[in-house]
Amino acid sequence: MTHIVIREVALRDGLQIEKPIPLSAKLELLSAVAATGVREVEATAFVSPSKVPSMADAAELAAELHNYPDIDFSALVASPNGAKRAIAAGFRSIEYVVAADDTFSMKNVGRTSAEATEQIADIVAIAHGSDVAVEVIVATAWDSPFEGPTPPQRVLDIAAAARDQGVDRFSIADTIGTATPGRVSSLIAQLRPVIGDLPLGGHFHNTRGAGLASAYAAVTAGVTRLDASAGGLGGCPFAPGATGNIATEDLVYLLVDSGFEVDIDLAAAIAAAEVAKSVVGHDLPSALLRAGDRIRS
Amino acid sequence: MTHIVIREVALRDGLQIEKPIPLSAKLELLSAVAATGVREVEATAFVSPSKVPSMADAAELAAELHNYPDIDFSALVASPNGAKRAIAAGFRSIEYVVAADDTFSMKNVGRTSAEATEQIADIVAIAHGSDVAVEVIVATAWDSPFEGPTPPQRVLDIAAAARDQGVDRFSIADTIGTATPGRVSSLIAQLRPVIGDLPLGGHFHNTRGAGLASAYAAVTAGVTRLDASAGGLGGCPFAPGATGNIATEDLVYLLVDSGFEVDIDLAAAIAAAEVAKSVVGHDLPSALLRAGDRIRS
Repeated sequence: MTHIVIREVALRDGLQIEKPIPLSAKLELLSAVAATGVREVEATAFVSPSKVPSMADAAELAAELHNYPDIDFSALVASPNGAKRAIAAGFRSIEYVVAADDTFSMKNVGRTSAEATEQIADIVAIAHGSDVAVEVIVATAWDSPFEGPTPPQRVLDIAAAARDQGVDRFSIADTIGTATPGRVSSLIAQLRPVIGDLPLGGHFHNTRGAGLASAYAAVTAGVTRLDASAGGLGGCPFAPGATGNIATEDLVYLLVDSGFEVDIDLAAAIAAAEVAKSVVGHDLPSALLRAGDRIRS
Repeated sequence: MTHIVIREVALRDGLQIEKPIPLSAKLELLSAVAATGVREVEATAFVSPSKVPSMADAAELAAELHNYPDIDFSALVASPNGAKRAIAAGFRSIEYVVAADDTFSMKNVGRTSAEATEQIADIVAIAHGSDVAVEVIVATAWDSPFEGPTPPQRVLDIAAAARDQGVDRFSIADTIGTATPGRVSSLIAQLRPVIGDLPLGGHFHNTRGAGLASAYAAVTAGVTRLDASAGGLGGCPFAPGATGNIATEDLVYLLVDSGFEVDIDLAAAIAAAEVAKSVVGHDLPSALLRAGDRIRS
């Protein structure tokens, strides 16, 4: 059975666009998430607190993570300075995001995609100098909200740069939830010769209903790592342009029932989704939160 | 490019569990659906009006279908008598449902699965005697709400009977929305040697979020026909045990973006979903109704 690593991203990507919630609420969510058996958790982001106020407590949250020694926590960073802050806070894994299109990249970090790609070298030097693992995530890997479809060659070029700089993991993100399984399979097939044996991850949003289908296409194409968030936290499901992550519990159900092995217990994942719903105070797009496991009595 | 036939089932499976709506509202929905370019529409069911009051107007609806000569309309039947009524009302295609498990079959039609399978011969004789096409649909093809996982051999046995009786099409239905892509691929691989070249269809519900992933797995495994409903009509999405069909517009988006060819225009499908929402008077689970097409300005 193929083992798929599911990284729980509710605490970072899930909460990023929510109104900031108290640290105590984050810790309640973390506790529920940890109880699922998950081995990797994206805990926070070291980015500008003025741009992303919900992540302003990154260092305070980091100080609580020692309570979960079996989980590999990661933090998202957008610059060498962010990498230094994450490492100083104690993180042993960081994720550095490079957007594949210039417009999104400029709006996001004030640098072109090529400039952000060049910074991979600095990030890796900082991280590896402290024995910290680095993942490069390509944002807008299939489509940009500003520039339309992303030429696959842009993703391949970033992948080649990441490989050449010796990153530890590489992943591709469907930032705006437009990818579909056919294009997912196609991009992965093009990526594999470039990245070789580098662990490859996928990050999908269910905005247009195709998130789980794309995630499944990714694992059948050889991806062994997927991001998901408890309850599908990450964007209001009832607003136009909703951007919910694929829900951890829906993904666990689909993968296990399809014959894949994961670390996460389904009943505990549904319980964590209930906590996610409770801490943000609104409904979440998760299907299993409504329907329950296979057969509800 | 592989062409996938999408059969629109909003008027039958979509409306089946809704409160009955006036014939005029059904015709408004039909008009919107017809404008999508769809070539096949499941229009109604000839079943007990006391058990399914929303289909009590089957004959009246049938009398209006001549306005759409380019669409192949079908009606669902559950008995030889239903087949006769559908043919008398003018249908040139009928679908006969056989549940794969006895408990569901007994509750649904008062016959065991084997007894329902035996009736395929009568249904085919009646239909082919009037030059009408017959599709056999296996309900609970993956799981029964009462008996749990369906042994694949049950589906293969029904398929063999359907093939031997000379049905025109065969399809498998995930009646309670529990199927996942791995089990979908597996069942189709086992079915193909049994049914040979018989056109094979799939019917999926998105109850646990895996409907589109299962539908995509089906087409990659060789299914060329899929059912879907405008807006994902078919069960309240906000209630426990929600049983919405996969949404036509979400399926069109996913298939076309993945490189498949369909008859349905995406913008018209989104417009039809708006009409579906309007005629039933509540929100529908469709993702594209909220998010719009690829990039919403």
